[in-house]
Amino acid sequence: METVYIGADIGGMTIKLGCFAEDGELIEKWRIPTRLEDKGSFILPDTAMSVKERAAKRKWMVAGVGVGVPGPVTKDGEVLKCANLGWDVFSCKQKMTELMEMENIEAVNDANAAGLGESWMGAGRNFQSMVMVTLGTGIGGSIILDNRVLHGFNGAAGEIGHMKVEYHEKDVCGCGYRGCLEQYASAKGIVRIAKKYMKEGSHIYINKDMLNAKMIFDGAKKGDESCLEIVDKFGEYLGTALSNVSCVVDTEAIVIGGGVSKAGSILIDKVSEWYHRKSLYALQNKTFCIAELGNDAGIYGCAKLVIGRGKQWQK
Amino acid sequence: METVYIGADIGGMTIKLGCFAEDGELIEKWRIPTRLEDKGSFILPDTAMSVKERAAKRKWMVAGVGVGVPGPVTKDGEVLKCANLGWDVFSCKQKMTELMEMENIEAVNDANAAGLGESWMGAGRNFQSMVMVTLGTGIGGSIILDNRVLHGFNGAAGEIGHMKVEYHEKDVCGCGYRGCLEQYASAKGIVRIAKKYMKEGSHIYINKDMLNAKMIFDGAKKGDESCLEIVDKFGEYLGTALSNVSCVVDTEAIVIGGGVSKAGSILIDKVSEWYHRKSLYALQNKTFCIAELGNDAGIYGCAKLVIGRGKQWQK
Repeated sequence: METVYIGADIGGMTIKLGCFAEDGELIEKWRIPTRLEDKGSFILPDTAMSVKERAAKRKWMVAGVGVGVPGPVTKDGEVLKCANLGWDVFSCKQKMTELMEMENIEAVNDANAAGLGESWMGAGRNFQSMVMVTLGTGIGGSIILDNRVLHGFNGAAGEIGHMKVEYHEKDVCGCGYRGCLEQYASAKGIVRIAKKYMKEGSHIYINKDMLNAKMIFDGAKKGDESCLEIVDKFGEYLGTALSNVSCVVDTEAIVIGGGVSKAGSILIDKVSEWYHRKSLYALQNKTFCIAELGNDAGIYGCAKLVIGRGKQWQK
Repeated sequence: METVYIGADIGGMTIKLGCFAEDGELIEKWRIPTRLEDKGSFILPDTAMSVKERAAKRKWMVAGVGVGVPGPVTKDGEVLKCANLGWDVFSCKQKMTELMEMENIEAVNDANAAGLGESWMGAGRNFQSMVMVTLGTGIGGSIILDNRVLHGFNGAAGEIGHMKVEYHEKDVCGCGYRGCLEQYASAKGIVRIAKKYMKEGSHIYINKDMLNAKMIFDGAKKGDESCLEIVDKFGEYLGTALSNVSCVVDTEAIVIGGGVSKAGSILIDKVSEWYHRKSLYALQNKTFCIAELGNDAGIYGCAKLVIGRGKQWQK
């Protein structure tokens, strides 16, 4: 019997599962669908069942399970509503403890899990503290200090996508407020600002109805003027916001992940340039890097929460 | 011989000293002038001498000294320049260790010391985490998590006065950049925005050449329209900035101190109103309060750093 730890990263469509050795080696990963019926009541039982079945087949001794949730979670593993899954307030940690019939269980916000994963085995592994910002459809974030997640009193630390970066915005963000970073620097946000700044003659103007963030970064790499201007605006918003984040927590590194980060060095260079243009002398010493674990960051972080402290689960 | 701990809060004009019992009782406080000559080289020797003299007179057994510095300090007690005192990079902790001939010495940024003081014995004593914002001539800040200061990698965590809150500012902040919170919500910043918003007929218009923050809050309390509008603008800037701070660290409480905070409930109400208007659902649960220790917060926090872990200093 091999002693293993499970990371379960619950998303709105699928639940990603990873089985890890104590040293962080990813032994196996798999996915199951997320069933949203009946207010998401099948999600945790499905997860537990899948883990137990696979453990029986593979002869794993599961010594801990960490669960990532796409919504605010307190340090004690209590979910404070999760609209994407239909969940109301309840203790995810306790429910999973019952389902798994074991004690070494934790629950954490999924963005925090991704940050912890990168900090443990990814781009942040050589830094004592880091901010992780995930640029996807929306923007997720997390603060990792001494290899531990900063949860916050309401489980909402690291929600940097909803920092206000503009006082004069008229459009409304998904959160119901105006001027959130997410409205400018997420995949959707970049397209939104592109529509303001693109000019006739630019290749993105020609393709404006099917525009996406990748097209804009690709255009900028080729020297398209509109695209360069849009990437500069994106860099100003994100770099300034990250400067503000640093005024609060001053971490050693800032790690940028999510689909948009695939743009690579042009993105890092622009964000870093604006960061330095906006930051105090004392905050100039900051390392920027691209995340390394991709979609696996969440399962790594979930597993890390329970590794090396576990009581064992046995049938 | 009574065992005591010393907090030494170094300012540009005076050094405030406090002698504390282990339980946090302030036994005695005094001040000495800050000598800025010769790149501030007399400051630490003067401090050590004053502590030793008083200890000999009072028959104190000094078991630790915490030093507050008006500039960035790392977790290890290294000062990263301090323009106000003429100091370059050096280990304040080590220098003071030599001068005091004892080991239980710490150095900390003065705003962080004030936050720790309030967290320990002041307005934050019932909260597990808090942000402290000090509204004086400038704006200081600190982040206290589980009764410990968050220093940051460069000793610059909590520098919330230099978060950028406006992209379109033309005036330059003391730090050399534009659009810092300090330009809108410090005592000087409030006067600066007042000059934009005050109208003829307002009592502050009549007194516009000798305007200060107190006059504006007093006017607002009496219902002066210009003053109400200025206080509202102040509240929007500070409330939104604190909402952004909460997106990063999500503490249980926010404590507001410094001279401007003497305006009292009108200030707290306005900042809290704007905070709630700008914050995510998950961040609505936040307590605002006014600092309680006034100018003593720094010496409390400095002493707290060294209390209850000390080797003794003896002549």
